[in-house]
Amino acid sequence: MERIFIEDLSARTGEEVIIAGWVDVRRDHGKLIFIDLRDATGTVQVVVLPNHTEAHDIATKVRGEWVVSIRGKVNKRPEKMVNPDLPAGDIEIEATEITILSEAQELPFEKSGELNLDTYLDNLPLVLRSDRTRAIFRVQAEILRAFREFLTEERFTEIRIPKIVGGDAEGGAAVFGVDYFDHKAYLATSPQLYKQIMVGVFERVFAATSVFRAEKHSTTRHINEYTSLDLEFGFIKDHRDVMAIETRLLKHVMNRLSQRCTREFALLDATIPKVLDEIPALKLREAQQVIKEEFGEDCTNEPDLEPQHERWLCEYALKKFGSEFIFITHYPVKKRPFYTYEDEDDKGYTKSFDLLFRGLEVTTGGQRINDYDMLVKNIKAWGLKSENFSYYLQAFKYGMPPEGGLGMGLERLTEKLLGLTNVKEATLFPREMNRIDTLLSE
Amino acid sequence: MERIFIEDLSARTGEEVIIAGWVDVRRDHGKLIFIDLRDATGTVQVVVLPNHTEAHDIATKVRGEWVVSIRGKVNKRPEKMVNPDLPAGDIEIEATEITILSEAQELPFEKSGELNLDTYLDNLPLVLRSDRTRAIFRVQAEILRAFREFLTEERFTEIRIPKIVGGDAEGGAAVFGVDYFDHKAYLATSPQLYKQIMVGVFERVFAATSVFRAEKHSTTRHINEYTSLDLEFGFIKDHRDVMAIETRLLKHVMNRLSQRCTREFALLDATIPKVLDEIPALKLREAQQVIKEEFGEDCTNEPDLEPQHERWLCEYALKKFGSEFIFITHYPVKKRPFYTYEDEDDKGYTKSFDLLFRGLEVTTGGQRINDYDMLVKNIKAWGLKSENFSYYLQAFKYGMPPEGGLGMGLERLTEKLLGLTNVKEATLFPREMNRIDTLLSE
Repeated sequence: MERIFIEDLSARTGEEVIIAGWVDVRRDHGKLIFIDLRDATGTVQVVVLPNHTEAHDIATKVRGEWVVSIRGKVNKRPEKMVNPDLPAGDIEIEATEITILSEAQELPFEKSGELNLDTYLDNLPLVLRSDRTRAIFRVQAEILRAFREFLTEERFTEIRIPKIVGGDAEGGAAVFGVDYFDHKAYLATSPQLYKQIMVGVFERVFAATSVFRAEKHSTTRHINEYTSLDLEFGFIKDHRDVMAIETRLLKHVMNRLSQRCTREFALLDATIPKVLDEIPALKLREAQQVIKEEFGEDCTNEPDLEPQHERWLCEYALKKFGSEFIFITHYPVKKRPFYTYEDEDDKGYTKSFDLLFRGLEVTTGGQRINDYDMLVKNIKAWGLKSENFSYYLQAFKYGMPPEGGLGMGLERLTEKLLGLTNVKEATLFPREMNRIDTLLSE
Repeated sequence: MERIFIEDLSARTGEEVIIAGWVDVRRDHGKLIFIDLRDATGTVQVVVLPNHTEAHDIATKVRGEWVVSIRGKVNKRPEKMVNPDLPAGDIEIEATEITILSEAQELPFEKSGELNLDTYLDNLPLVLRSDRTRAIFRVQAEILRAFREFLTEERFTEIRIPKIVGGDAEGGAAVFGVDYFDHKAYLATSPQLYKQIMVGVFERVFAATSVFRAEKHSTTRHINEYTSLDLEFGFIKDHRDVMAIETRLLKHVMNRLSQRCTREFALLDATIPKVLDEIPALKLREAQQVIKEEFGEDCTNEPDLEPQHERWLCEYALKKFGSEFIFITHYPVKKRPFYTYEDEDDKGYTKSFDLLFRGLEVTTGGQRINDYDMLVKNIKAWGLKSENFSYYLQAFKYGMPPEGGLGMGLERLTEKLLGLTNVKEATLFPREMNRIDTLLSE
């Protein structure tokens, strides 16, 4: 007999089936043994009655995380026992035969319990099995899927971005060195230069790609390796075209999440944000004025926003516009990378933007300079060596339309969407200064 | 007026439209100027008649790779002028207005011309714009899409694999060192250990992920950074379940390519292989016997296959079974990584396989050891330190079903599918010993 996935059991009421998975919990009610069994698709309750002697004997032995296959009958649950939060919540399995496929050692702690961050990270191979973390990374997989789905539909082509690079693309980010045979190479801090080159090839490109920042921060906002959801495209009028596509992209992602991940959002007690047809946008200077007037702090002379400012602006956007997202545009030329487009009508400021969501910056984007001479001039003005950019500059030497794009941090987006408090919780195997899986020795 | 994508023009016959893109070629026929214009979706012929004086003046100036937007009328082509190989081959645009969006410097050579490999690699930002390379990487994007599509449908969950790791996962592969703050870290040579850990979490997982090999080879088969298409899943009977899912996966990919990439395959003069319902499989020893009998070389004492052996076996599979794919199974225990499952019925040999396609190994896979004690024993027997694997071993300590998986090289698959002769041609920005974009200085 073929093994059946748990989410398909409801359609098999009354039938005999074989299922297989991990023992999530075993509960004994007198002689009755209940097992919550977990597989790729969900969790189902299995009941082992004492009259199935052999199965019952085995059931008394199994503990959390043991792997078993179970033969049994699919029974409809009484109306009032139906659990609508589970894919197979309307049925249960009456086990007639249990086979142990893999035993588990005794768990060091309850895998779904409250753990401090170090214990959590030390034990990821086990604790990732909890309902909570499984929900987090299911949602993350759906974000990835919806991101690609939308952009493919919009005629973007997926590209593969190299991770080993000859230098720091943007100039300024902290970068990891790589021993590359007899040379020094680096880990990419951004796919920026490659995706711009590829606009010349495919006009519209995207990538979900790992980037690396050698930042010595140890905060709830930073990890040293993360996933950047990037897109870049030609024939834009200005940065607002990029903001418009991000708005539609976010709408698509949220729609898909509400179709595919309701159970996960319910479990995590998180809500899917509404994306307005037009996400409110403020120039940085306007935003600073708002902070001064509404929150009493004068940051109008700062070239950038501090974390507290971002939280205030999100609070403001929600109250004033009913939006959980807000764009901040027109950062000063000198605070942005050399390729950022200066606004002709607002000299000294750029056609660039950040997107804030629930108190955190989750996207940076904008229009890029597409004129070769201007780029060469800026590379010098930024104190960089144009010979280091000769490869990149070819793309602009040989014809490049007005273009722009954005990069969105997958883990930060996941974190904020699900109301987590640390980006590490939204990263499968987070890399931090003193930890690669296990703590690094002194 | 909204700009229209080229592939949508056929539906607009008789209408006035605006299109935009790169000048692929300009041809003058007396006073008549023809421009092949290229955008994200295809190429269309634009004709500029001398009576549209202003447009005609501009058209005399434009050259290859200039970026323009063109207003004009969509005219049906006469029956015998229809080019069925182009998405807009049944129409042409009669230009009434041309706007230059970006000029291009004179091209150093014809971008579609025959180039030696160094010139090609030195000029990728330009030469990637040729029809040929665009076709190659479109196909690659479709392979990625079809890979994910199939596995999502099969209830696999996508996972993000870290690239910075604490050590060499498999033991044996040449590895790049990373300066990780005050520590030494490495670039992942494979997602193996992480995907196995994640079988404990999601049962069925996949990733398309970059891996890094510090191999000093400079051959047509090697690159130092490549994309591994990985899957791993639980509750298998043995390695044949993995081979079966690969067979179905390949069927799906080839189906999708024949739906979505006929134009690209035609352009590259490549054929989409037929995937048999059952791909032929030989044990390594049987394969070596075939080589001896059919091709006269005795390699029966070798623990592995040489490139020439792989080519011969593919030749044999095509002739004997009508298959462009062939599985080779049962490599010796000592030639495979520590986690490879030994065949109880064929001691000394493993339940592992390679898949050969058109003369090249494109996949390695098999059943893995899922028993904790056995893994610990093997790690020692392989001369590795079990404390380096403590993280990984947790997954097996706490219950792991019989499981297996595979890794497929995206670039090699692309290369062989499209009949290219060098894996670098199937890699967007290939990393090799002496080159990261530009040649590394001595």
